[in-house]
Amino acid sequence: MTDVGPPERAPPRAGPDPAALARDAVALAAALIRCPSIAPEDNGAQAVLAEVLGALGFSCTPLRFGVVENLYARIGEGRPALCFAGHTDVVPPGGTDWSVEPFAGVIRDGVLYGRGAVDMKGNIAAFIAAAAAWLDRHGGRPPAALSLLITGDEEGEAVDGTVKVLDWMAERGEIPGFCLVGEPTCIDRLGDTVKIGRRGSLTARIVVEGTQGHVAYPGRADNPVHRLVTLLSDLIARKLDHGTAWFEPSSLQITTIDVGNPASNVIPGHASATLNIRFNDRHTAASLGAWLGEAVAAHAPRHRLELSCSGEAFLTEPGEAVERLVAAIEAATGVRPRLDTGGGTSDARFIARHCPVAEFGLVGTTMHKADEHVPVAELGALVRAYGSVLDAFCG
Amino acid sequence: MTDVGPPERAPPRAGPDPAALARDAVALAAALIRCPSIAPEDNGAQAVLAEVLGALGFSCTPLRFGVVENLYARIGEGRPALCFAGHTDVVPPGGTDWSVEPFAGVIRDGVLYGRGAVDMKGNIAAFIAAAAAWLDRHGGRPPAALSLLITGDEEGEAVDGTVKVLDWMAERGEIPGFCLVGEPTCIDRLGDTVKIGRRGSLTARIVVEGTQGHVAYPGRADNPVHRLVTLLSDLIARKLDHGTAWFEPSSLQITTIDVGNPASNVIPGHASATLNIRFNDRHTAASLGAWLGEAVAAHAPRHRLELSCSGEAFLTEPGEAVERLVAAIEAATGVRPRLDTGGGTSDARFIARHCPVAEFGLVGTTMHKADEHVPVAELGALVRAYGSVLDAFCG
Repeated sequence: MTDVGPPERAPPRAGPDPAALARDAVALAAALIRCPSIAPEDNGAQAVLAEVLGALGFSCTPLRFGVVENLYARIGEGRPALCFAGHTDVVPPGGTDWSVEPFAGVIRDGVLYGRGAVDMKGNIAAFIAAAAAWLDRHGGRPPAALSLLITGDEEGEAVDGTVKVLDWMAERGEIPGFCLVGEPTCIDRLGDTVKIGRRGSLTARIVVEGTQGHVAYPGRADNPVHRLVTLLSDLIARKLDHGTAWFEPSSLQITTIDVGNPASNVIPGHASATLNIRFNDRHTAASLGAWLGEAVAAHAPRHRLELSCSGEAFLTEPGEAVERLVAAIEAATGVRPRLDTGGGTSDARFIARHCPVAEFGLVGTTMHKADEHVPVAELGALVRAYGSVLDAFCG
Repeated sequence: MTDVGPPERAPPRAGPDPAALARDAVALAAALIRCPSIAPEDNGAQAVLAEVLGALGFSCTPLRFGVVENLYARIGEGRPALCFAGHTDVVPPGGTDWSVEPFAGVIRDGVLYGRGAVDMKGNIAAFIAAAAAWLDRHGGRPPAALSLLITGDEEGEAVDGTVKVLDWMAERGEIPGFCLVGEPTCIDRLGDTVKIGRRGSLTARIVVEGTQGHVAYPGRADNPVHRLVTLLSDLIARKLDHGTAWFEPSSLQITTIDVGNPASNVIPGHASATLNIRFNDRHTAASLGAWLGEAVAAHAPRHRLELSCSGEAFLTEPGEAVERLVAAIEAATGVRPRLDTGGGTSDARFIARHCPVAEFGLVGTTMHKADEHVPVAELGALVRAYGSVLDAFCG
């Protein structure tokens, strides 16, 4: 009878002292890297965060939508002044050219290696360490409310993640005054870049129908490749715009053309192409869809055009809040961030529908690559920068 | 002992009376169709011809080069005044939409069906029937020498066929005064078209190398699809020429473009296209290759360009011999043939290097198609037309 113990429970993933882990950005980042959370798998990453945030006094709500684990954590009274948004999911390691095990959280010569080191487990860990220090500075009584929106579905479908958590937050009055997304935005050194918007992304698949025939008798055929080439040549020769105050010019890239006709004496019956437009705030997916539709119809009366938009362009107009963020980062890093809207998409496109949002985090050079890594010193600098931001928004 | 017979030999493929078969164009064409001689297979077709021509008094020389059966037959003294050139090989039946068995030689409602009926077993049979009648008219003592060059490799590689037989003929002083190729040249009715040349054919495969990258950062990549599209658009916008006295304008057709990039957020590393140029006597494969090379280099410094010419353009200048041919056809058919240089290629491109050559045969509408067929009456008319040509050249 003596061997009947208390009911079993899962051992704490954050180790015996989650409050200590919360204060150690490097150890916390390594602990997160050791959860191989390739989207949409979680593999314990969100449980680690719930434990360390709980140990700091945050109230944590796991939010599972579909197969995706999400976490909302908050501390303080009333509507959050600031929300930190991040994702625990990562892209696959890819290839075999890693010099370390991608999910071991190896530290070598003062550098932390692993998938997610910069995109973006390192940033999450740095923010939590900064939040712990901020709470310590205020004797555990936060002067303003702070929240964290953590998703496990940013690199994946982005359907059951941030979008749904935002809806949940909106219903409960939890939309913050400002949102900081912890993407790795910096280019050359920590502090050099804040993103205040992102371009939109529209993908178009075009199938041109023609009439098959023998190359010796082109008059009896209708070569769809010629129609497609002339159309595409026309599209890439046009300039969509010359950029706007905060955006680069929109860019159209043809990503593939496929005909698959093995016979060099046959004019094929159809030809297809896919193109992607990264567009600024002068356009919408609808306006570009109409523009494409007109061009395609002019060159190819018989065609199919399939459009798919993964995000409209958005911009948080620079003003008092952005200036406060920039000043806080400059104060901590000694570098004045450049305001940028380039690059790919992020979950900020969803947040922008609800509140002002900007993105700031580590130097992103190695993200999505083999041997993704962050210098330990840079993580420490990011803890100080995020601490300065916390003082500025929740001081 | 009584069951020991004479040594076995192959039964005559042309039946018990090859001399009779030689005089019956419909029966001979059907017998040839029953040999499924899909290039480079022969399946007895050339043996049938050797038997019927032998029965008419021709001396026949089978000429096997590589796997290809060829036949040279001649009658009369000295250098042939006329050579009839033809091929016994056919293209595959293709598809399943034949209403008759393609190699049965079925006659239905006065129409002979089968693969090769017009391209070109029917024409060979008609010429042999015409030659038999011509020999009969001269009491078996031909007033001039006549030859037949029959290959089994026109629809295939065209390497071990007519080209090699011509070399063999040249070595023996057998190059004729004039060569008539029995291709199905007529468009609407028998007699309407004689071909006196053909366009050349040059195929180019272009591979453009670029630099792979993310569509969000086109400045860091070099999109090979854009280079290729601009190049191809430039090529199809140019006019190679406006035609010549006897030729249509040259024509460039892009037959395929293939990139095979499934990721709409990735700029691919390379892109390839194939194009075919059917060119007239203003160009050569070399001049067009140089023209293409310059255009490709201008648009795509890093590229591969592979050229393959299956025949230069050639022309038998209209003159006394062509006029004699035209007049003979008009006399027999009541239709004055139009001189033409359009369409695909034929073995006439090889013969043109040795002697004047023209092409004349059945209406070609059904060649290479399902239910290839020729009306029995049209075969009879072709026997009369070829007879008139024989009188004109060997009378």
